[in-house]
Amino acid sequence: MIHPIPPGTRDVLPDEMRELRAISESLRDTFEAGGYGEVWTPAVEYEEVLRAGDENAANAGYRMFDEQGRVLALRSDMTIPIARLVATRFGDVSPLRLSYFGHAYRSVEHTSGQQREFLQGGIELIDVPGAAGEVEVIATTLAGLAAVGLARHRLGLGDGALYRTLLDALDVPADSQPGLLTCLATRDLVTLEMRVSELGLASDARDTLVRLPELRGGPEVLDRANGLANDAVDGLRVLYAALEEEGVANQVILDLGLVRELSYYTGAVYEVYDPAVGFSLGGGGRYDDLIGRFGAPRPACGLTLDLQRVHVAQAAEEGLR
Amino acid sequence: MIHPIPPGTRDVLPDEMRELRAISESLRDTFEAGGYGEVWTPAVEYEEVLRAGDENAANAGYRMFDEQGRVLALRSDMTIPIARLVATRFGDVSPLRLSYFGHAYRSVEHTSGQQREFLQGGIELIDVPGAAGEVEVIATTLAGLAAVGLARHRLGLGDGALYRTLLDALDVPADSQPGLLTCLATRDLVTLEMRVSELGLASDARDTLVRLPELRGGPEVLDRANGLANDAVDGLRVLYAALEEEGVANQVILDLGLVRELSYYTGAVYEVYDPAVGFSLGGGGRYDDLIGRFGAPRPACGLTLDLQRVHVAQAAEEGLR
Repeated sequence: MIHPIPPGTRDVLPDEMRELRAISESLRDTFEAGGYGEVWTPAVEYEEVLRAGDENAANAGYRMFDEQGRVLALRSDMTIPIARLVATRFGDVSPLRLSYFGHAYRSVEHTSGQQREFLQGGIELIDVPGAAGEVEVIATTLAGLAAVGLARHRLGLGDGALYRTLLDALDVPADSQPGLLTCLATRDLVTLEMRVSELGLASDARDTLVRLPELRGGPEVLDRANGLANDAVDGLRVLYAALEEEGVANQVILDLGLVRELSYYTGAVYEVYDPAVGFSLGGGGRYDDLIGRFGAPRPACGLTLDLQRVHVAQAAEEGLR
Repeated sequence: MIHPIPPGTRDVLPDEMRELRAISESLRDTFEAGGYGEVWTPAVEYEEVLRAGDENAANAGYRMFDEQGRVLALRSDMTIPIARLVATRFGDVSPLRLSYFGHAYRSVEHTSGQQREFLQGGIELIDVPGAAGEVEVIATTLAGLAAVGLARHRLGLGDGALYRTLLDALDVPADSQPGLLTCLATRDLVTLEMRVSELGLASDARDTLVRLPELRGGPEVLDRANGLANDAVDGLRVLYAALEEEGVANQVILDLGLVRELSYYTGAVYEVYDPAVGFSLGGGGRYDDLIGRFGAPRPACGLTLDLQRVHVAQAAEEGLR
């Protein structure tokens, strides 16, 4: 090709575009029916503002200078800009329900074949703390994906603080922790086991750090984690009961090894799957400390979907029928 | 505000977002009914690719380096990326009708208060040369704006080559021409007159250069331009007759001073207005040489609308009723 486009970006032709628009519209209708009003934030923000939300969020994106020499960045996620927006424009609306549809950008290895331009759609729920907030966000997302035509989609549910608590409780040195968390975030349990074994821990502690991330399934996995990271496990128990009450627990898989890459999650974290495809369709979690970095602290949780991945899952599901 | 957003960008809150979505959907329905399939191109492109389309288009935008040191830019218009797309992906579809909805970016003076992030929607018609192509693009756009709820919108119609031809015919030195064309593009007829008077031309020539851009109205303005830039005037006469046949000439105002800033226009140029607001809602023109810069030459024309401006016009029209 004589006139290339940057690696990780793509042109979308009309047939695919029509299907992506239909997915967006189904999700938007579901979100709107749930009271989530759509907002738009600029694709370009000051890097220092994004960095206030998460150190990695600013580093990950494309960066450029403005004519004053200030560093700008393409947003790499939508949650940090919306946290800024909530703090600066929605001080007196509570609870607050917002949705968004737009592109986010991440720079990746030149040869990795990974995407850099992501079409994202999602929701943020502000000022509904605890299980009530999680249940609403999870149920709304599952309903949105059903409206899109998925039938077998599942949500993995973990706690972003669980493994961190465990690392502290088992006296894992602070400088070894980030490496282990990265293994978890990338689901590289082989490297995790290797690194854990190099720490020189007692065999009990070693087993716990290696086995706990493998615990996935129904509420029985919580019993098997008993005595470890009690706050996080108790939180998941309460949340799972609330999801049962809402009638969506059958679509939720507890996953004690679930960790999200961004550091702003403070409690429950989610990831969305479909059995027809081998990758996550999106994810999110509770971020009770993030809005406070831009103004008055407010509890919040949210979930974002990668619409191109939802589209692939939708096509794969249709192919299986 | 402690956490600012870059000048020229804005956050859009739910009420406005809902109205912008409704505008996009009305336009998309009109375009789709006319056979225009929506495409998406990456917001980030290689600067040298954008520069192949128009020198200014690459300079105007935000620029950044990738990890290989190549210069990337945020697209500053949608027509150049679509010309690239047409040349590389649609070699065997003819005629070809494409539409787009997305943001484009232009850097502006820090203190100017002008926008930098534009929500654009528009169409491109490839391989329908001459008046037939123009009439389709103009009629489709006018119908789209009617679907949005505008009733008094008008389209200004000129020829991008007309004034250039005139400058050559009247022996205006090449180095004086760009300044005069910039005055025209920015509608600064006072400075135009001053600059023309400094050229030391005969009074006939001076009058022509100052008076011609003031000619606006029905087909009678073409008669008043007789003998000047005959090819361009004849082209406009044929096009106006075709617009009359299509039944849309009553919404078209001939404007012999109309010049668009981008250099790729080769013939007719358009600008869209509404009497309720004092600014253009969008514009476009014929660009028969642009696609050839990326592959095989193909005649084409198109028109883009600034959807935030269309929204302001819609609100102003509703306010007047």
